[in-house]
Amino acid sequence: MTDSWTLTETPCAFNRRLGTDALFTLGNGYMGCRGFFEEEQEGVEGLGGIYMAGVFGKGALKAWKGMHRELVNTPNVFWLSIKVDGESVLVRPRRISGYLRTLDMRGGTMARSFTWKGSRGARIRLEFERFVSAANLHLAGQRLRITPLDGPARIEVAAGIDASVRQHNMETTLPLPIQPGRQHLETRFSRDGMIETRVATLPRGVRIAEGQEVRMLGPKGPVAGKPVAFPGRAAERFVFTCPRNATARMSKLVHFFTSRDGNAMALLRKSMKKGMDYDSLLSAHRRAWASRWKMADIEIEGAPDDQRALRFNLFQLMQACPEHDSRVSLGARGLSGEMHEGSVFWDNEIFKLPFFTFTRPNATRSMLRFRHRTLPEARRHARDLWFEGAMYAWKSGDDGVEETEMGVGAYYAIHIVADIAYALRQYWEATGDDDFMARYGAEILVETARFWQSRIYYDPIRKTHNILAVRGPNEYDVIVNNNCYTNMMARENIRYALEAMVLMKKRYPAAWRRLSVRLKLDAREPAAWRRSARGLLICRDRKGGLYLEDDMYLHRAPFDMKRGKTDGRRVIDGNLPYEAMAHYQITKQSDVITMMNLLPWMFTTGQMRAAYAFYEPKTVHDSSLSYAPHAVMAARLGMKREAYRYFRDCAYLDIADIQLNTISGLHFANLGGTWQAVIQGFAGLYQHGNILRLAPHLPRAWKALRFRVCYRGAILRVEMRGHKTAVTLERPGAEPSVLMIGGRRIRLSRKGESATA
Amino acid sequence: MTDSWTLTETPCAFNRRLGTDALFTLGNGYMGCRGFFEEEQEGVEGLGGIYMAGVFGKGALKAWKGMHRELVNTPNVFWLSIKVDGESVLVRPRRISGYLRTLDMRGGTMARSFTWKGSRGARIRLEFERFVSAANLHLAGQRLRITPLDGPARIEVAAGIDASVRQHNMETTLPLPIQPGRQHLETRFSRDGMIETRVATLPRGVRIAEGQEVRMLGPKGPVAGKPVAFPGRAAERFVFTCPRNATARMSKLVHFFTSRDGNAMALLRKSMKKGMDYDSLLSAHRRAWASRWKMADIEIEGAPDDQRALRFNLFQLMQACPEHDSRVSLGARGLSGEMHEGSVFWDNEIFKLPFFTFTRPNATRSMLRFRHRTLPEARRHARDLWFEGAMYAWKSGDDGVEETEMGVGAYYAIHIVADIAYALRQYWEATGDDDFMARYGAEILVETARFWQSRIYYDPIRKTHNILAVRGPNEYDVIVNNNCYTNMMARENIRYALEAMVLMKKRYPAAWRRLSVRLKLDAREPAAWRRSARGLLICRDRKGGLYLEDDMYLHRAPFDMKRGKTDGRRVIDGNLPYEAMAHYQITKQSDVITMMNLLPWMFTTGQMRAAYAFYEPKTVHDSSLSYAPHAVMAARLGMKREAYRYFRDCAYLDIADIQLNTISGLHFANLGGTWQAVIQGFAGLYQHGNILRLAPHLPRAWKALRFRVCYRGAILRVEMRGHKTAVTLERPGAEPSVLMIGGRRIRLSRKGESATA
Repeated sequence: MTDSWTLTETPCAFNRRLGTDALFTLGNGYMGCRGFFEEEQEGVEGLGGIYMAGVFGKGALKAWKGMHRELVNTPNVFWLSIKVDGESVLVRPRRISGYLRTLDMRGGTMARSFTWKGSRGARIRLEFERFVSAANLHLAGQRLRITPLDGPARIEVAAGIDASVRQHNMETTLPLPIQPGRQHLETRFSRDGMIETRVATLPRGVRIAEGQEVRMLGPKGPVAGKPVAFPGRAAERFVFTCPRNATARMSKLVHFFTSRDGNAMALLRKSMKKGMDYDSLLSAHRRAWASRWKMADIEIEGAPDDQRALRFNLFQLMQACPEHDSRVSLGARGLSGEMHEGSVFWDNEIFKLPFFTFTRPNATRSMLRFRHRTLPEARRHARDLWFEGAMYAWKSGDDGVEETEMGVGAYYAIHIVADIAYALRQYWEATGDDDFMARYGAEILVETARFWQSRIYYDPIRKTHNILAVRGPNEYDVIVNNNCYTNMMARENIRYALEAMVLMKKRYPAAWRRLSVRLKLDAREPAAWRRSARGLLICRDRKGGLYLEDDMYLHRAPFDMKRGKTDGRRVIDGNLPYEAMAHYQITKQSDVITMMNLLPWMFTTGQMRAAYAFYEPKTVHDSSLSYAPHAVMAARLGMKREAYRYFRDCAYLDIADIQLNTISGLHFANLGGTWQAVIQGFAGLYQHGNILRLAPHLPRAWKALRFRVCYRGAILRVEMRGHKTAVTLERPGAEPSVLMIGGRRIRLSRKGESATA
Repeated sequence: MTDSWTLTETPCAFNRRLGTDALFTLGNGYMGCRGFFEEEQEGVEGLGGIYMAGVFGKGALKAWKGMHRELVNTPNVFWLSIKVDGESVLVRPRRISGYLRTLDMRGGTMARSFTWKGSRGARIRLEFERFVSAANLHLAGQRLRITPLDGPARIEVAAGIDASVRQHNMETTLPLPIQPGRQHLETRFSRDGMIETRVATLPRGVRIAEGQEVRMLGPKGPVAGKPVAFPGRAAERFVFTCPRNATARMSKLVHFFTSRDGNAMALLRKSMKKGMDYDSLLSAHRRAWASRWKMADIEIEGAPDDQRALRFNLFQLMQACPEHDSRVSLGARGLSGEMHEGSVFWDNEIFKLPFFTFTRPNATRSMLRFRHRTLPEARRHARDLWFEGAMYAWKSGDDGVEETEMGVGAYYAIHIVADIAYALRQYWEATGDDDFMARYGAEILVETARFWQSRIYYDPIRKTHNILAVRGPNEYDVIVNNNCYTNMMARENIRYALEAMVLMKKRYPAAWRRLSVRLKLDAREPAAWRRSARGLLICRDRKGGLYLEDDMYLHRAPFDMKRGKTDGRRVIDGNLPYEAMAHYQITKQSDVITMMNLLPWMFTTGQMRAAYAFYEPKTVHDSSLSYAPHAVMAARLGMKREAYRYFRDCAYLDIADIQLNTISGLHFANLGGTWQAVIQGFAGLYQHGNILRLAPHLPRAWKALRFRVCYRGAILRVEMRGHKTAVTLERPGAEPSVLMIGGRRIRLSRKGESATA
């Protein structure tokens, strides 16, 4: 814990060694690499844990339709075997001292070092370093330093790419125990330090081509390596003797391509001809990270622990984002683990995208294009269920097919459709990217509005428009009618479609005509949408102050929280089965509160207070998506202590393993949620009517908060200190930036212009 | 189709040979034996299909709690291998002529005969017969006659007990294809024609001891057999030459016991020492059937096909009933197949028990005792779900543990609790068996009333008592609140408990005191029950004429029947997934209609008409439990044509394989439903206030209907002809029999006394 840029682990957690691997994940959006030990050990540590965006195999669950997919554990490109005087270097108690694992978040590197004592007592110092290049998506680097401390030692190091890895589990939904699971890879070729594998479990599985360049600098100069033949592994072995206190240095570059890039082997061969060196690649990598941090970093004055935790969340979020490839999006565990099979859910749009939208809008654009690419599947899904337009999959792999098992509720959890529309609209307002709207956004909005139009049922008896049989963000509600979140968001979705239509007609009439023809849009459709949106039932209690999660929430039995939530485990894992939940007033995770955070301009403070006071005590937080919305809402309501407590639940969720399953990957929605807690909560940021709003609600422990925001092409630097907010226009956009800070309207147009409120 | 007592099959259905095996099932409640071919064939026919009440193994599904069980396919005691001139007798097209399979329902035997032509053209006539003794639960008989028609033939017959059988499928819920599934049996002993096996998949699995006595009478007198050694099979082989047109006769008796009876091997040895012969055993068997039929038969004049179909239904119902053993009850497929794993559901009490209650009340008594025996499990289940009293398992094996998988809705389908109470109360009223009430019934009623008391939620806002989160008989409703069937039946359940209390206090004060102390019954409980029952919400439409299936039924979207039900398949198997159902006004099977049939005195004709008119067009009959209630209701409403159509759907459901899964066993609820359609529908029978009511509504095609009813110890013979009903008191009970026929009150007290109305 040396500084607020470094996450450290010391001493070695022998008993739960893999438990913290996810925290030390490195990645560049193309590849994610858990912080596993490189050197071969005795158990499941050899499984590695490297994932590549879009590399899926056939999973074990029974998909709604089609074939269930899971993110594939790809070859361990950092595989090492180290022997000293014929003895394997194994990380065992009493053999290891001075153990330290560090994640340098500023530079994007991971390091590990320890002193190992052989069975005859001689000590050896080992130092590892690795990175996955942020400057070149297809490269990674690894370094090893070995120093005998007590006398000369005979060193044997084999460095390779190991394709004999398996998934981390047989059961895809259980975090523990990690044990060798399905094997997806078939090795097709292995020579000259290059290996080509194929995901054999899918009919046209991706091919992966990987190659290594290893250099070993012994005490007397370069050591020549020899290829080691071993099935499914491309490796080179170095054997030499190293005197006391002399250091041998191995450096290795890895190149990787897949058939998703083109001819993977050809690309690999070309790349390996370039002749890169470790140090210059690492420098380029560090420069790339410095540039990323410049825009994304948030500085907290007065709370170094919070500062470090916050940076950890942002760092991991940035690392996994597949900004380069709109054929994929960001899974629930990113590229840091196998839970949820690498699939994309609603939380991508609602929890992760805001960070990118306001700091790196191109990343959002790419992930929204993924949703546009999967429109055909969403249309098919709607049609299969007798609806119109596009019904996005609740759980989507790379092809957009619904991967939730039948019966598990995908049919009900349709708010995802509106969540995508919301994120799209949020991106459009925050960037003014009309081109995106014209090319992709309008089509999504029209098709999702159509879906709602067919899914909304007009009840001729009650004379209301209803959305029946849904599951809101509160997944313990099993099925309800008129979930407030779903209905409000569906209404927004329709409004956004109508708004997009106006824009299109005005700015892109020809494109709009083409789209209308292609979608066979009837001129009467928009009016029908408008009627539905207007008529949609939004349930409130009789006095009108309390928005009701669904039309029966108040009429269910009160839940005995003391009996139901007795420990850290989820209620359904401990005390009461899922089926029983529909009987009770119990909220698994924020539902109305999340909705209010998304549309804050629609609610009075009184309504927000009422919702918080009513739902917060009924919420069991059995999801990682629950803390951040509570932090945001509490902050906006000025409940500083509660807001700070919820912020800490978010910020430390993975570091402290609050949900007991970080071993299976980081909680990406919560990473984004941590940003939301700080920026949308403590800094009170939201946009409405092309005005960016800010309102400081800093925790008492924080002296100041500094961050940057991208807004409609401009870059704004914000500093909050107590109740004061200073904003500087660091880079102007095409139009002046309009802000509302604590009720004061501010207009900034010149570079460097500042305002304080 | 020679007479109305015989079910026949001709010619041979080569392509779907196993498809009709279930129709030809024989049994005695202890053992059920499908009509499979005895002689070894080339494929899955060798799997046999013999089940024994209470013999369960570990199933494949994941039970709610404990271990999922499935009825075990026990050794094939009728196994034969027949060779003629060295060639196996295989039932193949072009080799078989004159094929006939018959089920003699009057005598309880199955016969099969055909002429087989060998590859050299010589023809052999084979005739098989078998029965499972109704006179002795532990015996069965088999006979084979072989006659060479074209010249002398060398005959080899091996007869044995084959324990190498497996389940009929891997997937327990799929009817097709039949293929060798799990193996449950382990052979522990095999010698001297005796074999002992053990269900090895459960920790303390049942042991089965079986033995055979085989006699072969060749053309020249007895042929000596030789034991054949083969793992898992006890068999004897007979080899001899038979001249043209001479007949060799094999007869075999099988003895069977299980460890549920005591020391199975000792019992077997004792039984085999008795020296029975086939013919006298068969005579005793036939006498037992004649006596059964005397009480249970229903005669229809003018419709021989209906007569046969009706007898088929009654025959199968009687055959499977484990009247001798209150540790088991009657599964959804009886002992005729493996679907639903031999488990007992609500339909046992609501669809099957009425037949027994009014024709063989001791059988009902035994099956209700099964529910009393499983009270401890029902109590545990209630406690686990935070309720009180006893919550019976939706799906129960022999131990009463909930075997439904978690998530499949057992938590919701709680009407079973009240269904058991209803059947109990029906039995008590129909028999006046106060002793049963005192020993078992009162305890069940108190514990189930307590369950409802804890499950009913008083909504302080609406000021109503609700039963939330349930699934009614209409299983397409997924989850609803205030299902009318459930609420009405729960109310009845509470009333019955209060009524039983009054009886107990008056007639069995000491037993009542003991029970109250044991159950820790608080004196204030009954008043609370009464309040809940009184306050329970029973939903009707605004005008009050239509009882609503649940409080949202009217407010769901109309269902497009043309699109949803395009063929014989269930909607969920073809057109729309289960999850989508909660969106629609769709009724899988009769719900409100079944409720009205159960409590007819509570509804006006207008209310019944309204319900029928409203629900019938919305009902897809995707369950075999749907036709009978519609037949009953239509008959009672005088809708003769519709009633008759629904009656035929019931009566021929298995014979015509209307649900496409009779291969996996007969639909036992529907067998009982057929009785209900005739007796409760066409004969209008129901009891209320200790008065038996009858009202003829015969189909036009039926000239007359004759049947007997057991009622409060009396036996009444009823004959209906047109609108006339004649009742004769064949055996008086302890008190005069009071009847109400078409509005006329009749009192019969002397034996032979008649009345006409």
